[in-house]
Amino acid sequence: MNKVAVIMGSDSDLPIVQKAIDTLRGFGVPVEAHVFSAHRTPEQARAFARAARENGFGAILAAAGKAAHLAGAIAANTTLPVIGIPVSASTLDGIDALLSTVQMPSGIPVATVAIDGAVNAALLAVEILAVSDPALAAALEARRRADTEKTLEKNAAVEAAFNA
Amino acid sequence: MNKVAVIMGSDSDLPIVQKAIDTLRGFGVPVEAHVFSAHRTPEQARAFARAARENGFGAILAAAGKAAHLAGAIAANTTLPVIGIPVSASTLDGIDALLSTVQMPSGIPVATVAIDGAVNAALLAVEILAVSDPALAAALEARRRADTEKTLEKNAAVEAAFNA
Amino acid sequence: MNKVAVIMGSDSDLPIVQKAIDTLRGFGVPVEAHVFSAHRTPEQARAFARAARENGFGAILAAAGKAAHLAGAIAANTTLPVIGIPVSASTLDGIDALLSTVQMPSGIPVATVAIDGAVNAALLAVEILAVSDPALAAALEARRRADTEKTLEKNAAVEAAFNA
Amino acid sequence: MNKVAVIMGSDSDLPIVQKAIDTLRGFGVPVEAHVFSAHRTPEQARAFARAARENGFGAILAAAGKAAHLAGAIAANTTLPVIGIPVSASTLDGIDALLSTVQMPSGIPVATVAIDGAVNAALLAVEILAVSDPALAAALEARRRADTEKTLEKNAAVEAAFNA
Amino acid sequence: MNKVAVIMGSDSDLPIVQKAIDTLRGFGVPVEAHVFSAHRTPEQARAFARAARENGFGAILAAAGKAAHLAGAIAANTTLPVIGIPVSASTLDGIDALLSTVQMPSGIPVATVAIDGAVNAALLAVEILAVSDPALAAALEARRRADTEKTLEKNAAVEAAFNA
Amino acid sequence: MNKVAVIMGSDSDLPIVQKAIDTLRGFGVPVEAHVFSAHRTPEQARAFARAARENGFGAILAAAGKAAHLAGAIAANTTLPVIGIPVSASTLDGIDALLSTVQMPSGIPVATVAIDGAVNAALLAVEILAVSDPALAAALEARRRADTEKTLEKNAAVEAAFNA
Amino acid sequence: MNKVAVIMGSDSDLPIVQKAIDTLRGFGVPVEAHVFSAHRTPEQARAFARAARENGFGAILAAAGKAAHLAGAIAANTTLPVIGIPVSASTLDGIDALLSTVQMPSGIPVATVAIDGAVNAALLAVEILAVSDPALAAALEARRRADTEKTLEKNAAVEAAFNA
Amino acid sequence: MNKVAVIMGSDSDLPIVQKAIDTLRGFGVPVEAHVFSAHRTPEQARAFARAARENGFGAILAAAGKAAHLAGAIAANTTLPVIGIPVSASTLDGIDALLSTVQMPSGIPVATVAIDGAVNAALLAVEILAVSDPALAAALEARRRADTEKTLEKNAAVEAAFNA
Repeated sequence: MNKVAVIMGSDSDLPIVQKAIDTLRGFGVPVEAHVFSAHRTPEQARAFARAARENGFGAILAAAGKAAHLAGAIAANTTLPVIGIPVSASTLDGIDALLSTVQMPSGIPVATVAIDGAVNAALLAVEILAVSDPALAAALEARRRADTEKTLEKNAAVEAAFNA
Repeated sequence: MNKVAVIMGSDSDLPIVQKAIDTLRGFGVPVEAHVFSAHRTPEQARAFARAARENGFGAILAAAGKAAHLAGAIAANTTLPVIGIPVSASTLDGIDALLSTVQMPSGIPVATVAIDGAVNAALLAVEILAVSDPALAAALEARRRADTEKTLEKNAAVEAAFNA
Repeated sequence: MNKVAVIMGSDSDLPIVQKAIDTLRGFGVPVEAHVFSAHRTPEQARAFARAARENGFGAILAAAGKAAHLAGAIAANTTLPVIGIPVSASTLDGIDALLSTVQMPSGIPVATVAIDGAVNAALLAVEILAVSDPALAAALEARRRADTEKTLEKNAAVEAAFNA
Repeated sequence: MNKVAVIMGSDSDLPIVQKAIDTLRGFGVPVEAHVFSAHRTPEQARAFARAARENGFGAILAAAGKAAHLAGAIAANTTLPVIGIPVSASTLDGIDALLSTVQMPSGIPVATVAIDGAVNAALLAVEILAVSDPALAAALEARRRADTEKTLEKNAAVEAAFNA
Repeated sequence: MNKVAVIMGSDSDLPIVQKAIDTLRGFGVPVEAHVFSAHRTPEQARAFARAARENGFGAILAAAGKAAHLAGAIAANTTLPVIGIPVSASTLDGIDALLSTVQMPSGIPVATVAIDGAVNAALLAVEILAVSDPALAAALEARRRADTEKTLEKNAAVEAAFNA
Repeated sequence: MNKVAVIMGSDSDLPIVQKAIDTLRGFGVPVEAHVFSAHRTPEQARAFARAARENGFGAILAAAGKAAHLAGAIAANTTLPVIGIPVSASTLDGIDALLSTVQMPSGIPVATVAIDGAVNAALLAVEILAVSDPALAAALEARRRADTEKTLEKNAAVEAAFNA
Repeated sequence: MNKVAVIMGSDSDLPIVQKAIDTLRGFGVPVEAHVFSAHRTPEQARAFARAARENGFGAILAAAGKAAHLAGAIAANTTLPVIGIPVSASTLDGIDALLSTVQMPSGIPVATVAIDGAVNAALLAVEILAVSDPALAAALEARRRADTEKTLEKNAAVEAAFNA
Repeated sequence: MNKVAVIMGSDSDLPIVQKAIDTLRGFGVPVEAHVFSAHRTPEQARAFARAARENGFGAILAAAGKAAHLAGAIAANTTLPVIGIPVSASTLDGIDALLSTVQMPSGIPVATVAIDGAVNAALLAVEILAVSDPALAAALEARRRADTEKTLEKNAAVEAAFNA
């Protein structure tokens, strides 16, 4: 199975990013985590991205806040799918990171998820790997059903409390 | 090769969506286009999404404006990667469609691209298919190099005009 | 009397939604509460909405945060009045939920109230039922007068404190 | 059948408001149109609102731009359902009118629709009247089906053009 | 000397409004405080505004949050200068109240100050009274000089701490 | 009667500012117009403001766009009422000028009107002069009544067209 | 004298950037123009930035729109002053480019000017070179005086037209 | 070596500004700190700015919140590079200060950094001085390398924790 890389722009993003790592591991997807900064260690970010396909990665998650250039900088150096997680790390609550991540110019896509949306970034990576991996697709369907079950249980609890 | 579906919420989105179709066809990716509305034809949207993997699709693009629920409604009914294109169809220039598309709740990801970013949505779909298709990966690399060449030529023209 | 349904997208919305339930009950309006998610339990949301008129409902409240599609998804499946409550559940303080709820396309209206405005959503439902129910209309007028009285008392207290 | 009032803050709002009048008339709903300004003719607005229920109205639409106080000023003087249409009449493209209309204080609801969303405002009024009028409910269902048909036809056209 | 009225839309605005009252009293300006709601006690607000000039007022301050219609509703019923204080009473931090207060239609001005800017609202009222009251103008100049002195002292302290 | 000064930051603001001049002259208020820039001619702006009261002015209007510092710079040098007109002169449609004008620090008020709201700025100045000038107050009331009449006429036209 | 580089992310930015080039040349500052894209030609951008000081540059201007990473990508590879020009190239009127350019993480500054503010970017570069170049400082002062003169002339024209 | 001035609009900005002072001192750059208000002590601000070049300054930092005019007011009185730090001092989290600082009119540039970005403002000043000071340029390179080292160490720690 292809690996998934989880890149964070700063280790202060780890509490957000941890949820992506846990979600990926929950599917048995091999994960590698790195701290690469588009601005402080651009060489490392670039080198990683350029070699990522050859090194067996199938998708790359990139989480960053403020003027969040990380996902775009990774995407500029690979044609693997890059998933951007805008992090709410400034006084502007992440709207700066969202626009900096999603408004990419034509030619270099970044698949952007919600502000602080690390779980969905991980699920998107699993969905990407599952396109050619029926077992993973089945695992996604199972998780989706489990989510549905949990919501149905919450509904049952609310109905019991209010509709008696 | 897996097919890619291009769904638009209204045929008024066609001028935007056409660029995605053209880009996908440029890579030889089989495309199907549909007009499904999350609100006016929710049954059709849902039926399509639920059967999409079985019907040979590898990714689904969904373009919509205003309270753009289409991508989320598709994503709620499939575990295929769903790529959302927020369309600038209201007086708010697409910020409503962007937030409605990207701020998805945990469990149901939508890979969101820039407002009106149909070309990048198509490229992202190709990147997803290319994870398990080396020929497609090579085609992406070729296009990327061609884009680089075009920028280098523009640079040469500007340098010639200004730096003589 | 017609019933009013109070749907929440997640049980984490209950603290907001509880005020709607209490307000409706204060008018003697029969209430049913449910947790239906536009994305995690779309079938249940749809089935409920399609049968709602037949099942004796006169209005449906739908509360959701982030990319708040719930009210729109309900409205797509009924021609009963649907009242949307945008919930401030993300770092963006509810502006995402507001735009996702209010900017509906032509044909499928959602009656949107203020961010976290559960009391007003309930009052709006009572107003709708009261169009054909003079007793309920009188109860609304009584509550309005009571609100006026409370404001007049507050005014009297402030006048006594400052204008002596 | 109850009448529906369509109030505009200025006759410059007429091109927007006309769509609401046409939609209501299409359902055979008796309509009255007025120009009342919350600021220039507050007496008239207030007098109309206070007498509206007695005068046979079942819902009131109020359209205004900029610091759009009209819907709130009407709602302060009636317990009939008031539907606010924020109009994009300033350089801010209607976000000022939207917030001024929707962010009402607890106790005085305004059912807000999309910026310039006159058709949906009319449909919402019809939905409100239809709660106790099965024939009107049937007419709404018929229009919904017609909308669905139109979208299905557009889909057929797009499918024919692209998926041959 | 003319009196100044300080109107608040709710007694929850008192902590903000208190600063306006204190500032006005500091200049010896006679103040009257009231709680009038544009929506819950519109009659009282209107009656007060219509009689305000005759009753000896020279300016009216109006503080309100969310869809802040209070200042506009007062201004619609008087040609005295009305000063609006947008209050940060919602999840949107006062941007809703600011736009609802400042974006008034042509013909009915509201002199708007900063979000929660009660001190400046009071100073503006004093400036208005001082146009025809040289003693008050002198008091404003004195306060301005005192403010300048305070800033100079802070500067001296900072200079002493850092520039030694 | 006191004069009113109308300051614009650039002569490109003249089309907006002209409406203020015309409105003031319509009331017989003596007007002086100037182009003073907070940044390009700060000395002239400052000198004018410091001498304005002595020179017989009763209020100062200041119109500027983008980072609109003009009204604040004037207000820093006088205790006359300063009325700020944010001008929509940038790609941001005046929201930059609005925030730069209205969010003044405690101690230095600027009475801010709507974006491009030159007529209301003029009316506010007349209201300020009218506090001690009963004839001007009567003229304001007359204009207000005329505005009301115009709206009533528009209402009559709309009622005739739609309610026959 | 040090040279100044003017980098644009796309040749579509040339109409904006041209004003910077013209302004720099007006001061006799040697200019080099380039089209380097942070995403399409990241190698060239990086190579240029890393060698810029050695190659005699004293400041670098970088203009880009949408998710404008160019200035940050340049700044990550040099400790020369980098001046960012956010370009209004998307439906969001440049607010995306502004936040992407200005909200840089600690350690890698970008000196950001107004949206489309190419002239000021050039002036800022001249100011930087002028710190150690008295002749250039004198030229800046001369231009400033000329700007002041132009504003004074406009003021004279307005005063002549209105204050006669 | 030229000195750098650090101006704050209020001593409440000191916790932000302190980081700029510390950063500058870390490079051995002589610093002077002042509290000058564009509105409360405009004379002092102006006098300081006009004499700054003569007094040996090479750059001026100006930090202010809300309608942040300070940097612009300084820039209007000097042709030295002025670096603006927008401070998040209002309910709007600094977006008001950012727009008030960055959207300067043509002719008077302000080099704007991120909201609360005092460290980067200091680094930018050092970069400006370093254009003609190779030792300072070397110190900047050393700090950049140290920052890179720190990020590499954080990366190593994360890699050790997650990729074992």
